[in-house]
Amino acid sequence: MEYRFSPFIEQVKSSVTRDILKLTQGKGKSIISFAGGMPAEELFPLEAIRDAAASVFTRGRSTLQYGLTEGYTPLREQLAERMTAKGMHTEVESVLLTTGSQQAIELAARVLTEPGDVVLVENPTYLAGLQIFGMQGLRVVSVPSDEDGMRLEEAERLVKLHKPRLVYVVPTFGNPTGRVWSQERREGLLALCRRYEIPVIEDDPYGEIKFEPAADYPSIYALAGAAGGVLYTSSFSKIVAPALRAGWAAGDKPLIAMMAKAKQSADLHSSSLDQQLLSELLLQFDLERHIRGVAAAYLDRMNEMQELLRTHCPAGVSWTAPKGGMFLWLTLPEGLDAEVLLRAAIAKGVAFVPGVAFYAEEPERNTARLSFTLNTGERMAQGIRLFAEAIEEFTARS
Amino acid sequence: MEYRFSPFIEQVKSSVTRDILKLTQGKGKSIISFAGGMPAEELFPLEAIRDAAASVFTRGRSTLQYGLTEGYTPLREQLAERMTAKGMHTEVESVLLTTGSQQAIELAARVLTEPGDVVLVENPTYLAGLQIFGMQGLRVVSVPSDEDGMRLEEAERLVKLHKPRLVYVVPTFGNPTGRVWSQERREGLLALCRRYEIPVIEDDPYGEIKFEPAADYPSIYALAGAAGGVLYTSSFSKIVAPALRAGWAAGDKPLIAMMAKAKQSADLHSSSLDQQLLSELLLQFDLERHIRGVAAAYLDRMNEMQELLRTHCPAGVSWTAPKGGMFLWLTLPEGLDAEVLLRAAIAKGVAFVPGVAFYAEEPERNTARLSFTLNTGERMAQGIRLFAEAIEEFTARS
Repeated sequence: MEYRFSPFIEQVKSSVTRDILKLTQGKGKSIISFAGGMPAEELFPLEAIRDAAASVFTRGRSTLQYGLTEGYTPLREQLAERMTAKGMHTEVESVLLTTGSQQAIELAARVLTEPGDVVLVENPTYLAGLQIFGMQGLRVVSVPSDEDGMRLEEAERLVKLHKPRLVYVVPTFGNPTGRVWSQERREGLLALCRRYEIPVIEDDPYGEIKFEPAADYPSIYALAGAAGGVLYTSSFSKIVAPALRAGWAAGDKPLIAMMAKAKQSADLHSSSLDQQLLSELLLQFDLERHIRGVAAAYLDRMNEMQELLRTHCPAGVSWTAPKGGMFLWLTLPEGLDAEVLLRAAIAKGVAFVPGVAFYAEEPERNTARLSFTLNTGERMAQGIRLFAEAIEEFTARS
Repeated sequence: MEYRFSPFIEQVKSSVTRDILKLTQGKGKSIISFAGGMPAEELFPLEAIRDAAASVFTRGRSTLQYGLTEGYTPLREQLAERMTAKGMHTEVESVLLTTGSQQAIELAARVLTEPGDVVLVENPTYLAGLQIFGMQGLRVVSVPSDEDGMRLEEAERLVKLHKPRLVYVVPTFGNPTGRVWSQERREGLLALCRRYEIPVIEDDPYGEIKFEPAADYPSIYALAGAAGGVLYTSSFSKIVAPALRAGWAAGDKPLIAMMAKAKQSADLHSSSLDQQLLSELLLQFDLERHIRGVAAAYLDRMNEMQELLRTHCPAGVSWTAPKGGMFLWLTLPEGLDAEVLLRAAIAKGVAFVPGVAFYAEEPERNTARLSFTLNTGERMAQGIRLFAEAIEEFTARS
């Protein structure tokens, strides 16, 4: 049969990181990859997860029955308490458990928009966010952004021009840039969105992985307080492990209820075994201490990568110094196309993500994202040497 | 903030079974429920699932990393082999793992249709299917159906009239009627859909729970063979346990690839811990024997329920004698509205699902679905007595 597919799906770009996987296929472990946005496996709390699973099974067969669409109630309660303790007042009815924060974003976009609507994003922004919006037939407009976040005058101009139905931001250690929005920009965006009655999705999967433990970056959701208007999304993928695919959304109750209705039709509910396991884990395991350990390890790796880049990269290459998260964002010499560089780099045995993937509109082609979570020691050193070599060869030629 | 929601979501009916849950809330265990489409908890293979989980954790931390969107490859391979062994030739690339079969149906509908398109269904049909199609802004047209399946002349007339983009059927022990399509109807629908190039979703979550072990009801997918055009969806929810939320779709590779693209954007992937657990379970546990045990237990319960209905129900009530699955479908005396009956039944302490929920267009209001999986012995007897009493009071009055 000759299938006729929805044009929205047809036009969605497949993930660049997947294409990179394909490019590197067959080369296996010999490729040193800074491409994947994956947490470091060796830090996963396997024993604690195993013990939590064992505890779940002692509770009997009813643990294996269908669950509620909103998710396992004790875990929703624990998340509401945990968020409240972190200055983000949340009630249990305001929490929806999802299959990763990805699903939370997609459900929100589905209930809040119709095909043809405009969504406003940072520039650059999270690739999978762009895929979600594209698949729903939305028009993505990107707001010029700098190290402090979206530029507010530009945001206001574009709001007036395009009347967006939704704003999507990753203000803390964002993907791909690793940047942290200033408090002023957070407050400014909130005020702007209130004025024009535009809901904000604040995607925060990395916010807990901060390199200065005492630093406080108040979420836009916290700044909004009881007045609402902000949907906060996060995930256990980076702070526990991705295989459990457990994320959540916290927001205004009418929005959460509508998202639950959409979720009921999308998949009834997410794995309740995983949710019960995480609920036990939160009881049995010192998650806060674990997160501090992950952040400390990532800070070491980030410093290591910075040092290697300083040592090996030719002049004209610059990069961010993130205060948390998983990514470095590089600017290559003007005129160097990172997609072309990638092919040369893979030939040498190293991979990264060309920045072009993260732009909704006009890309800056001389940008790249490097994940510092996945390699250490000699492997990281070798990877950065090869990466720098590839750049060197291009700059020498031009 | 005053949210403006997508009209497609606004108009979707919430699940009747959820509304029934609400009606019965506070009454707790005192309500005997034949409403939920849930498998019997006491039959879940808890020990085998626990052991399979333990095996997964011995494989180390990499089991907790992100997985592929298509799902855990060994489980996809096992499913392809298992389907092939059951006469449904399937290759691994034709299998997509999903969060329950619900997600498989919704992804298929998403990639194959656009808002305003028509989908053809049986009458009555699976409630959650209707929700999926409604949420995607599809127009659902139902084909008059009898104990052998869709009436083919009617189906052809409606195909010509509405030019549907999709046909959705549950031909084996369907929800809600428990009926099995005849082979002639299966072949007829396939031929019709081929002629008009309409993809078929064959939803088969109950097909393995058959009361005559030797009976063979060839799936439409199997009848289609290499020519394709049929997407087969099923789930581990009824044959293992629902908490794992593991379903799958098998179909033509271009369709599966497009559904994977949609899934990548919807939730990246389903719980890979659950998928790995099921893969181990298929290695360590005699699933086929377990399924035969479940079917034998359900057959006993179905017979028990039939006997009780015969003993207690007043004249004018009739019901199906399903050859598998989980449901009895009742026709009440003409003029008796099952939604009104439900309120009276709940007051007495028993719940069921009024048939009206399963009709896309004009409902037959004197119908009801009873699940025979959830109650046994004195509890089932008491439930059917109360149910019959409620009917009796209505018929006595009229």
